[in-house]
Amino acid sequence: MKLDHVLSVSQFFDTSILEQLFSRVAYLEQADKGNYLEPTLKGKMLATLFYEPSTRTRFSFESAMQKLGGNVITTESAGMFSSAIKGESLEDTIKITSGYADAIVLRHPELGSAARAAAVSEVPVINAGDGPGEHPTQALLDLYTIKKELGRIEGLKVAMVGDLRYGRTVHSLLQLLALFPQVSMYFVSPEVIGLPEKYSTYLKEKGVQFNHLQEFDSILGEIDVMYVTRIQKERFASQDDYNSVKDAFVITSKTLEKMKSNSIVMHPLPRVGEILPEVDSDNTRAAYFRQAKNGLYVRMALLELLMQSRQT
Amino acid sequence: MKLDHVLSVSQFFDTSILEQLFSRVAYLEQADKGNYLEPTLKGKMLATLFYEPSTRTRFSFESAMQKLGGNVITTESAGMFSSAIKGESLEDTIKITSGYADAIVLRHPELGSAARAAAVSEVPVINAGDGPGEHPTQALLDLYTIKKELGRIEGLKVAMVGDLRYGRTVHSLLQLLALFPQVSMYFVSPEVIGLPEKYSTYLKEKGVQFNHLQEFDSILGEIDVMYVTRIQKERFASQDDYNSVKDAFVITSKTLEKMKSNSIVMHPLPRVGEILPEVDSDNTRAAYFRQAKNGLYVRMALLELLMQSRQT
Amino acid sequence: MKLDHVLSVSQFFDTSILEQLFSRVAYLEQADKGNYLEPTLKGKMLATLFYEPSTRTRFSFESAMQKLGGNVITTESAGMFSSAIKGESLEDTIKITSGYADAIVLRHPELGSAARAAAVSEVPVINAGDGPGEHPTQALLDLYTIKKELGRIEGLKVAMVGDLRYGRTVHSLLQLLALFPQVSMYFVSPEVIGLPEKYSTYLKEKGVQFNHLQEFDSILGEIDVMYVTRIQKERFASQDDYNSVKDAFVITSKTLEKMKSNSIVMHPLPRVGEILPEVDSDNTRAAYFRQAKNGLYVRMALLELLMQSRQT
Repeated sequence: MKLDHVLSVSQFFDTSILEQLFSRVAYLEQADKGNYLEPTLKGKMLATLFYEPSTRTRFSFESAMQKLGGNVITTESAGMFSSAIKGESLEDTIKITSGYADAIVLRHPELGSAARAAAVSEVPVINAGDGPGEHPTQALLDLYTIKKELGRIEGLKVAMVGDLRYGRTVHSLLQLLALFPQVSMYFVSPEVIGLPEKYSTYLKEKGVQFNHLQEFDSILGEIDVMYVTRIQKERFASQDDYNSVKDAFVITSKTLEKMKSNSIVMHPLPRVGEILPEVDSDNTRAAYFRQAKNGLYVRMALLELLMQSRQT
Repeated sequence: MKLDHVLSVSQFFDTSILEQLFSRVAYLEQADKGNYLEPTLKGKMLATLFYEPSTRTRFSFESAMQKLGGNVITTESAGMFSSAIKGESLEDTIKITSGYADAIVLRHPELGSAARAAAVSEVPVINAGDGPGEHPTQALLDLYTIKKELGRIEGLKVAMVGDLRYGRTVHSLLQLLALFPQVSMYFVSPEVIGLPEKYSTYLKEKGVQFNHLQEFDSILGEIDVMYVTRIQKERFASQDDYNSVKDAFVITSKTLEKMKSNSIVMHPLPRVGEILPEVDSDNTRAAYFRQAKNGLYVRMALLELLMQSRQT
Repeated sequence: MKLDHVLSVSQFFDTSILEQLFSRVAYLEQADKGNYLEPTLKGKMLATLFYEPSTRTRFSFESAMQKLGGNVITTESAGMFSSAIKGESLEDTIKITSGYADAIVLRHPELGSAARAAAVSEVPVINAGDGPGEHPTQALLDLYTIKKELGRIEGLKVAMVGDLRYGRTVHSLLQLLALFPQVSMYFVSPEVIGLPEKYSTYLKEKGVQFNHLQEFDSILGEIDVMYVTRIQKERFASQDDYNSVKDAFVITSKTLEKMKSNSIVMHPLPRVGEILPEVDSDNTRAAYFRQAKNGLYVRMALLELLMQSRQT
């Protein structure tokens, strides 16, 4: 397995690659918890270039890098502070930064920015979100979480709930899930923020079973995974339109009562009311904080792959 | 001695705990100066979450952590940049961050925020200022400075000067001083920013001798410690009210002439005119920069206590 | 060779000092590329205090420090966030920071700020730009780049192009070049942003040959180095004035066709149109990204000199 960059989830459309990756992720998790992590990235330098803030994502990359013995140079507001304001091109910034680091994590508001960066960089680039584009490490940690929590991916019933139109995590995750046999999906959302046609087409081509719904009550008893995303008020024409739908998509303790005991609730976070805090106490099924933590180990494994493949 | 979090100075209302702590602080200071610090926190990760800027405090925690072999993930503007702006609760941010780090230093403008954080965190939380609440590590370094500079705390005469109403460092320090026998205090301030009644009551209950004054000339010859705080213009009804008092509380070389040769002047810093730069050259008595430096060693000792107590 | 601070390029007006420095820089570059860097700064702490943003400069210092085994505490927006906004003097900030670190890199908008900092600091200060003043590490990396790319400095013909009036990198570099025999210079700029008289006087006193030009076509065939700087629109009385000159100073592939095969194009970066991206593909002569990377090694060598000279 060799990686030059991590730009798109499509680089991982291969279950044997995913298995290899997740096996390393599981090892790293054990090693971290058992305090026997080895400094596999000692002497390596990671640059985190965030043109938009995302403290959570930045922290998990930087923690991952340092736990493996590497070092970090970081900017949490590249857009405001770097020479970007003087008009420097992203390409130039990347070329220069790639002279100071062994890999670059890039968060940038423009679609395609990560690919542009990779085209000129002398070191591996990780796409940590390129606006409406992708955030592949999030999709990988989502998939890893399902695998780890439920022991398998094959045959699972997964509900995606909330903003399915703009939610890039949903778009990436459904493509990964489609790689596994007998996975079926429910897409639960208000119509105005429903799943774009191209993803329905994609799933049909892959022969994946799925349904569109506007509420989730009818499926609570069967699903294995409830993947919830944030519904943003700004997506609706009016406050009334927003109010009329939002309550139907809130996960409460009552929701969980109707779910299977071995099902899980996930959320890419941050949440803002989609899952009530009362749900947190359901240690078994409230998986979203464990999901966030898994990001640490997935990113560790990716950092290793990128920087070690460059060495040889 | 076991610490789960550092939230309030009241956790240290025990002179034997303070003695144990300060003995470690003194050792760490020697070890740092002699270049024989051991990496007691190797493999540990500290997250510094600052919702308000405080470069000084952040730097001292981050320097302390790294000098002990640990690593740091940091944000100096959590309020502007994190998912806080998307409406995430402090609790969620803390839960997620506690997945990436072994301890969290939190600076947050809201009273009680540190306690809320500690309630949900999986790792120790250090309160680095919760608005009008507390800043316990500052109080500890203040007390350590007095002990180190003067060799004892018992029996000292301590003047607190400036804004005694809003100055949380004064409130915390007076409570720590009250633990030691025969300490007496002078509270010197304009009336409008005088010491709140509850602290006077507290001291009376503890049997501590103290006086309120509106000038310090009469006591300069007797005091051992002059603890100065910043007087903020905004506290006064008018510019005239401010002007009428501010000069009476400025420490000059002349002030020091009337003080004992083995007394000290302290300030939590930043200062803005309360102590003239001319005072700095009095190496013996101008203790405020040494005081700031002591923060490094006090924080080292606390970081050790928090992360080592978790290990066992 | 002993350094207490790095404040001005004038500290390096000695070719034997430069030779010693550059020999160490070359060693560090080799060691980094061969993965055999030694942790010469292990246990040392660098504080980077940037009152103005400069991600590039900050990154190169922080990467340099960590590659040598040292640690970093950093603020990328000291002016917005530190106690500066409460009115603390730069001197106080420096005194306190020098208690937490073994060296300070300072970027500050005011002329003379670095010297003021050095006057009160307990640890070495590196001037990383003091407004209209100096940025000595840039000048050193510029000179190192010329030496490395062309094998010598003696006898070279160097054209400085663009904003010669406000461009502090030009002012510093010309002084360093003047130390070497038979160097001749061309100053190519619109008159309104021409080289200040005092530098012409300086060069005359040193017996250096130079010419002022308003276009570079006539010299392309003879020069060894083309050092380009950014022309800022704000320097011109009107948009028309700006438009009338800017195109004459843009480097294109056509420009390079007329230059010698063993000449180089340099730029302190960021560039905003002065050198077209098409030039980048001229691997031999487009030296500006290598120039940026050299900053890493020059800063490594300086950090070693500063922190090691303090040890003994």
